[in-house]
Amino acid sequence: MSAGWFRRRFLPGGPLPAPRPPRPRSSPVPYRRPRFLRGSGSGPGTADAPRRPDVRPVRSPARGRALPWNAGYAEIINAEKSEFNEDQAACGQLCIRRCEFGAEEDQEWLTSCPEEFLTGHYWALFDGHGGPAAAILAANTLHSCLRRQLEAVVEGMVATQPPMHLSGHSICPSDPQFVEEKGIRAEDLVIGALESAFQECDEVIGRELEASGQVGGCTALVAVSLQGKLYVANAGDSRAILVRKDEVRPLSSEFTPETERQRIQQLAFVYPELLAGEFTRLEFPRRLKGDDLGQKVLFRDYHMRGWSYKCVEKSDLKYPLIHGQGRQARLLGTLAVSRGLGDHQLRVLDTNIQLKPFLLSVPQVTVLDVDQLELQEEDVVVMATDGLWDVLSNEQVARLVRSFLPGNREDPHRYCSFWGPACAWVGTSSNTRK
Amino acid sequence: MSAGWFRRRFLPGGPLPAPRPPRPRSSPVPYRRPRFLRGSGSGPGTADAPRRPDVRPVRSPARGRALPWNAGYAEIINAEKSEFNEDQAACGQLCIRRCEFGAEEDQEWLTSCPEEFLTGHYWALFDGHGGPAAAILAANTLHSCLRRQLEAVVEGMVATQPPMHLSGHSICPSDPQFVEEKGIRAEDLVIGALESAFQECDEVIGRELEASGQVGGCTALVAVSLQGKLYVANAGDSRAILVRKDEVRPLSSEFTPETERQRIQQLAFVYPELLAGEFTRLEFPRRLKGDDLGQKVLFRDYHMRGWSYKCVEKSDLKYPLIHGQGRQARLLGTLAVSRGLGDHQLRVLDTNIQLKPFLLSVPQVTVLDVDQLELQEEDVVVMATDGLWDVLSNEQVARLVRSFLPGNREDPHRYCSFWGPACAWVGTSSNTRK
Repeated sequence: MSAGWFRRRFLPGGPLPAPRPPRPRSSPVPYRRPRFLRGSGSGPGTADAPRRPDVRPVRSPARGRALPWNAGYAEIINAEKSEFNEDQAACGQLCIRRCEFGAEEDQEWLTSCPEEFLTGHYWALFDGHGGPAAAILAANTLHSCLRRQLEAVVEGMVATQPPMHLSGHSICPSDPQFVEEKGIRAEDLVIGALESAFQECDEVIGRELEASGQVGGCTALVAVSLQGKLYVANAGDSRAILVRKDEVRPLSSEFTPETERQRIQQLAFVYPELLAGEFTRLEFPRRLKGDDLGQKVLFRDYHMRGWSYKCVEKSDLKYPLIHGQGRQARLLGTLAVSRGLGDHQLRVLDTNIQLKPFLLSVPQVTVLDVDQLELQEEDVVVMATDGLWDVLSNEQVARLVRSFLPGNREDPHRYCSFWGPACAWVGTSSNTRK
Repeated sequence: MSAGWFRRRFLPGGPLPAPRPPRPRSSPVPYRRPRFLRGSGSGPGTADAPRRPDVRPVRSPARGRALPWNAGYAEIINAEKSEFNEDQAACGQLCIRRCEFGAEEDQEWLTSCPEEFLTGHYWALFDGHGGPAAAILAANTLHSCLRRQLEAVVEGMVATQPPMHLSGHSICPSDPQFVEEKGIRAEDLVIGALESAFQECDEVIGRELEASGQVGGCTALVAVSLQGKLYVANAGDSRAILVRKDEVRPLSSEFTPETERQRIQQLAFVYPELLAGEFTRLEFPRRLKGDDLGQKVLFRDYHMRGWSYKCVEKSDLKYPLIHGQGRQARLLGTLAVSRGLGDHQLRVLDTNIQLKPFLLSVPQVTVLDVDQLELQEEDVVVMATDGLWDVLSNEQVARLVRSFLPGNREDPHRYCSFWGPACAWVGTSSNTRK
């Protein structure tokens, strides 16, 4: 992606200035639930209860079907918002083939013996909005993008230190020293691969949705175990935490219009045309009105973490770029998240103002050194979309985990079943890792 | 500052495309040392030693001259780099007058009685480069800018909660609730005032240097005690730490081309014309050369925290926007800091490429709740420029403080005198605050 591309794509005069009507060229993305839910009914939380419209069924994998690392999964449909569950999930094994370069620089795939594979595991949650299509595409696609990105750098990942040149030919004798001085480690290549995979997946979703005439977006929370480390990549407002006996450790942070206020305001400062004269980039405690004109009111701009006062002018009465607090905070009055996949066609209602330039598909990646942690039997990673975290704090979730797991050690489904009527989640028993 | 202003100022076609020869219209900024060093000789560290060219004299305030909060100060001239000490310092009392609004919205300054003053203290270090002029101007000016900015919002600072309207007239009955929901507190107004003061001071320095035909820039590290809190504002690579008996707490973080890589690379992505085709915004472990062409080498771009590999093209052989590691890291091959004041005329040697668009004058502000800390006799804040931190770690400085202070309780100059031949610094005995 180049600055020129950004300008052509999003600024007036570019090739896509007006919202294009959907032109279905391929069939719509078929709706589905995660594959590992096949054969499952409602989960144990409500299975024996009589079906009542006010009790939402919990679904989890069928008994006898084990997920990697004995992971558990449970989901409910948010019946108030949509008929279908817009959330999606995926998990599986990542088999990364090693790409070897011969003396002639020709590439060759070696697939004959297991030693040439690097194996990891992958869990992902996608919280869809504006329809389920983007989340379904992400669940179908992101792991393949990640595998491709990892295969492209795997030679560097398995070396003691990533080499300056992927071919292994050192051009400058002090190349290893340069790499050392920059502190570049194998895990930085995995972080880079996750960052690139999210972007690649976002591009795939953009193309697929355009081709099928569908719309929508989703957040993405991904955990990958690889070479003794757990990588958590997050783009959106889902969250992962590690629950241990005496510790609750956040493994991700949320990206919303509030947490990314300065980045978003700065983009509107740099490209004011993105607001089309309809919004103000400034933040005020509430939306201003005519009576505020000429008054000195609290405000902040992109470069400010603190607050100051400014004399209200007419342009300050416009709708704010970021408006509302907490769960109600919206970007351009439309979207509650600031990172994720999809939303390529999303526009502010009844306008030509695009959301996509303000959204990032690149995740923040946290690395947990699993080999260094002395994990115990009941240490788990909990991943959940905002539906869970809106009603339970990290500490409350940790208390639930700690109160349930020790008494149910014999139940192979204990990572699915202790959960009551809450949102989709994945609990990963880190200590059962092979 | 608007985006239009930025474009006119820095992008081709603006009014200042070419380096203008200095046009002295006012007299040059006179060189001086901090006022509180008047009457001082060399400090106790070298006072009794015979003067040798390889021993650099330490200067500290004259005995009998007390700084606010019994603060100590010591400085040496970096004889290897410049004849004059380019660092400057300032300290003093901040008297903030309260601006009251009458019924007719007319302003009136009330200065008759001490209750109408809010009093604080101010300590500042400025590390100059390219000449001492910017640091001198900052030492002369920044406290006045801060006082003005604080006076503009003091009515909000002394209220239980900053009001939505500075006049105190609430237009919407739920205004206090909106302010509450945003979590806006008095300290946010001080942070905002510090941010604005740094920017205002930067503009003053720009005008003054242009008028006097001088050049240069400086970092700025400021500590302000106000209403039971200590605010530390930092723009540059100086550092403040709090040393306590069992704790060393960083009060600032450094802003260098390395720590601000992503922000700087992103600006070059948005405005590639700022590099004039002479630099590449991409980061590589070392500068690339012809032999690297066509090879896959480690790199990262503005959106990446991880690393990946890319196939080297001809444009990648350009000089990197950020080059070198650690102390050697330079922005556009020129500057070792990415935030500070001044440098309005600074250009890459023999080119028209400006540094200023990549520099921020806005500081990062940390707040220490002094009233909540149960400070002990030997708890001190140490502020120093990079000259100190390049040779001593936080822990080493803490050990020096802890080993010296307890044995010298009777010496009123102990905060100046325990320091050997190191860089300028200020130690603040927080517990002697009135």
